[in-house]
Amino acid sequence: MRVVDLIRSKRDGRELTAEEISALVLGYARGDIPDYQMAAWLMAVVWRGMTRAELAALTAAMLESGQTLDLSALPAPKVDKHSTGGVGDKTSLVVAPVAAAAGLCVPMISGRGLGHTGGTLDKLESIPGFRTHLSLAEFRRVLEKCGTCLIGQTEEIAPADKKIYALRDVTGTVESPYLICASIMSKKLAEGIDALVLDVKTGSGAFMKRLEDSLFLAELLVETGRRMGKRIAALITDMDQPLGQQVGNALEVAEGIEVLRGGGPADLVALCAELSAWMLHLGGLEASVEDGKRRAADLIASGRALEKFREVVRLQGGDAAVLDDPRRLPQAKYTAQVGSPRDGFLAAMGCEQIGVASMLLGGGREKKEDAIDPAVGLTLHKKVGERVEKGEPLCTLHYNAPARLDAARRLAEQSFRIAAAPPAEVRPLVHRVLRDES
Amino acid sequence: MRVVDLIRSKRDGRELTAEEISALVLGYARGDIPDYQMAAWLMAVVWRGMTRAELAALTAAMLESGQTLDLSALPAPKVDKHSTGGVGDKTSLVVAPVAAAAGLCVPMISGRGLGHTGGTLDKLESIPGFRTHLSLAEFRRVLEKCGTCLIGQTEEIAPADKKIYALRDVTGTVESPYLICASIMSKKLAEGIDALVLDVKTGSGAFMKRLEDSLFLAELLVETGRRMGKRIAALITDMDQPLGQQVGNALEVAEGIEVLRGGGPADLVALCAELSAWMLHLGGLEASVEDGKRRAADLIASGRALEKFREVVRLQGGDAAVLDDPRRLPQAKYTAQVGSPRDGFLAAMGCEQIGVASMLLGGGREKKEDAIDPAVGLTLHKKVGERVEKGEPLCTLHYNAPARLDAARRLAEQSFRIAAAPPAEVRPLVHRVLRDES
Repeated sequence: MRVVDLIRSKRDGRELTAEEISALVLGYARGDIPDYQMAAWLMAVVWRGMTRAELAALTAAMLESGQTLDLSALPAPKVDKHSTGGVGDKTSLVVAPVAAAAGLCVPMISGRGLGHTGGTLDKLESIPGFRTHLSLAEFRRVLEKCGTCLIGQTEEIAPADKKIYALRDVTGTVESPYLICASIMSKKLAEGIDALVLDVKTGSGAFMKRLEDSLFLAELLVETGRRMGKRIAALITDMDQPLGQQVGNALEVAEGIEVLRGGGPADLVALCAELSAWMLHLGGLEASVEDGKRRAADLIASGRALEKFREVVRLQGGDAAVLDDPRRLPQAKYTAQVGSPRDGFLAAMGCEQIGVASMLLGGGREKKEDAIDPAVGLTLHKKVGERVEKGEPLCTLHYNAPARLDAARRLAEQSFRIAAAPPAEVRPLVHRVLRDES
Repeated sequence: MRVVDLIRSKRDGRELTAEEISALVLGYARGDIPDYQMAAWLMAVVWRGMTRAELAALTAAMLESGQTLDLSALPAPKVDKHSTGGVGDKTSLVVAPVAAAAGLCVPMISGRGLGHTGGTLDKLESIPGFRTHLSLAEFRRVLEKCGTCLIGQTEEIAPADKKIYALRDVTGTVESPYLICASIMSKKLAEGIDALVLDVKTGSGAFMKRLEDSLFLAELLVETGRRMGKRIAALITDMDQPLGQQVGNALEVAEGIEVLRGGGPADLVALCAELSAWMLHLGGLEASVEDGKRRAADLIASGRALEKFREVVRLQGGDAAVLDDPRRLPQAKYTAQVGSPRDGFLAAMGCEQIGVASMLLGGGREKKEDAIDPAVGLTLHKKVGERVEKGEPLCTLHYNAPARLDAARRLAEQSFRIAAAPPAEVRPLVHRVLRDES
């Protein structure tokens, strides 16, 4: 088998065998296959796509390039949740402790924020002392003790994905639903899970802006999970405006804690309930999603979910006192407000612009090496459809570096569209649910 | 400008500017842009193609990566001929001396054979002592003295093409008419020519097997030449059976000499006449192609073309005595014959198989590093359409290594199709002529 023939096959739209794909991916991970051949093959994949069998083989090979956690000694069902990335999405901080408090094992390996989207790791690291760089052995110990643990991708997990992702980033081959699917699933399956709930975002602040693209990706994810023997569901959820009111790392942690305390904005509360309920249902703890929602609400009302979060924060070295006093989280020195230019209704929010505004304040990264400021971000005072009066605050910017304010404020100002009448249609929070029914 | 954005543009089918293409190609030639980014871009070009303006910019950038000969001090019109490669095509050995004898300057930079096709350099090197590795200064001196010189691509000529070609070879990006066109034209334009005659092969032994693909490539070549300010014509010529009777390096040189002596097989003689005539016409020496044919025939009949070939062989260090006694060329130790299995008509020849048979005998290369045996090859005794009797020889194999015979003989046997009736249609020698009429 010559690598150039595999490239030519994909280029000409022929299906590769699982053996061919495995040889390619493992050969690349080992360094036997050069970057330039993988780059040409990846572009051919962007062009031609993959069959479902090829995609499962790609995922399996990427998974096989590293270690898979064996959590079979733990009696609890292992279930994780993964989001394709959005603005203001802090659901992981809520659903992991809720699900763990219910009795699931939630081995969550998360990513960092890049571009306009935030990342769970960056949020958690705004809790003083919180360590996300654990070895797999430490990860397992925390899981055993409290039923959840939230860390970053380690060297042992899917190294082929890491290497391929870095290459995609510089070769214009990021935007392929097949490659996105294999990248997500190889990392998630390495967690040794039984079931997975996927939150596939759709709308102006999502990676996939059109519903049909989000649906297509969701379908690939569910089918790949099914082929790998996992129980899996994908919720297509709205990301046409930020989730909740807070955007920015420490601000989002505080809002997550608010939800665990029984408060928080309605959209965030509702999505956390949906996602936790699906986790409990797929994990076999609840017979229906509706039962799961009731159970999740009980765990929040009883304070058990909050205590679970306290436990994991402590086990990962974090200052658990932030749960009682969110002012212990990093606070920005300055704030500035953006007011409504006129009376009317908030017709739309440029969700990606708000994410970029937070990034410009220092809350996100343009490049992977960039440092971030955990304290900065935006507080949104209105949701789409709400009435606003002229001068009424639409958002508050939290910042430390005055030089960064202007560009962020301009972007925030541009992101609000005020109309004379309320929008005719309100987008649902959950557009669709795809479920493997096999 | 980020390279990844140029890759994404091409991936998404957007047109790149000449400046963007130039930055990409020159950056790659300098080593500032890595192989993996060029590989992804090349695959995106295979996918999306190029506009005529992009193609001209690519050709210009590849040309600009190296030196262009300035032959303006030589008074004669500078005209070259280039073939896309076939089996038994030794026309360069004839048309270069014919055109030079007529008064043109023919600065011919040729390639080596690869796969089933032969290369002019390999053929010339079967003449004892003949040097094809000349510096550009030597090349110019020989051109000044005798009006033609035949060498290989030097380091100074289109180094970007050399580097890109090597990358295409291992990344499945050879088969793009755009990339083929830019590669051919950048090398030919570096010769400092005024006009170019292209011989675009079509048929089973050609790189482009279907007439429409050959026409498409020819159209790109002519349009690119026109945009670069050259007079240009492309002849789409038949390569459904080998040209002439001899396939193999020394055998082909001998057949070329035969044509220069006024003999040779009809198809080879006719194509040499066409190509020389177009060179004389585009070079401005003859008002029409018909006049050019008469002139070419006169130059052969008078022996002046043969004397011109003698001159250039001598100037390039070769043993000119081979022109009088072709037995001084390398001779294979053994011969074997393939006879017709039945009475009938030769209905078709597997042209590529015959090329591969010659390669298997040692006459060609599978890989660029392979050494070749100049003496081996095949002599074909019949052309398509001719009557054959059972047992009558179809071809003679010339070989030195008995171990190589069997595979080559099997392939040769398979390449002949004998039918009860003559083929209904005889393919023309020249299918079409494309000419820039601007």
